Amino acid sequence: MVFKLNARLAKDTLYVSENAYSQILLMNDSRYPWFIIVPKTNALEIFNLEEKWQLELNEQINLISIFLKSKYPKSILNIAKIGNIVQQLHIHVLARFENDFAWPNPVWGVGKMDKYNEKDSMILIDEFNKYFNKYYGIIN
Amino acid sequence: MVFKLNARLAKDTLYVSENAYSQILLMNDSRYPWFIIVPKTNALEIFNLEEKWQLELNEQINLISIFLKSKYPKSILNIAKIGNIVQQLHIHVLARFENDFAWPNPVWGVGKMDKYNEKDSMILIDEFNKYFNKYYGIIN
Repeated sequence: MVFKLNARLAKDTLYVSENAYSQILLMNDSRYPWFIIVPKTNALEIFNLEEKWQLELNEQINLISIFLKSKYPKSILNIAKIGNIVQQLHIHVLARFENDFAWPNPVWGVGKMDKYNEKDSMILIDEFNKYFNKYYGIIN
Repeated sequence: MVFKLNARLAKDTLYVSENAYSQILLMNDSRYPWFIIVPKTNALEIFNLEEKWQLELNEQINLISIFLKSKYPKSILNIAKIGNIVQQLHIHVLARFENDFAWPNPVWGVGKMDKYNEKDSMILIDEFNKYFNKYYGIIN
């Protein structure tokens, strides 16, 4: 298939990285450190992905989780596949804090996005990519 | 460890089934077909579970997903680990509909729970358990 990122996702996010399986994005909302994994598939649900692909997705979720929890030890991770508004399969992995904007509610649809300044987003993306490229092994 | 279900989860749910890895619950809210998996662990994040356990959890999520999507073909699945209010690790797997109460927002904290009448919940739980017991294989 030709992968085409949903227009709403493209508008709301910054590009982080990609491989054969998926694209990783950063939600352009500095209120929360918030990554999004978009598998390069037409499947709409995780169970529709073949097993190997699910394992790959899990590894990506785990690595983002460990990155966030290492960087923000007091955070609580929110991991979710919703898809009510943007149906293209995508998985949210973000860190929550007891004083964050939406706390303790979920983040979706709450308040207005607070975009990163370019330098801050570049530092975070660079730090993430160094970490991810060091530990990510494509499952064979 | 001795597994003890969080009091809030116990209050809001109906018992469905359990095995060595986890307890499965039905949210006592007939607005949405909504299962919850509670791994029997003190870990607070999915990445903290050992690999075999994560695979087991994924199989449980997949089976609940397939059950829901088979029963409600037009639904969209919401799958989430949140843990902002109840920290005991638990994973939500529920079916959403374009005319449901909270649509298109997430379900957490929206409106009041609409409890099942006992017969309806028993029918759903029985149907689920027959399906789950047929297809669930503990990973060795």
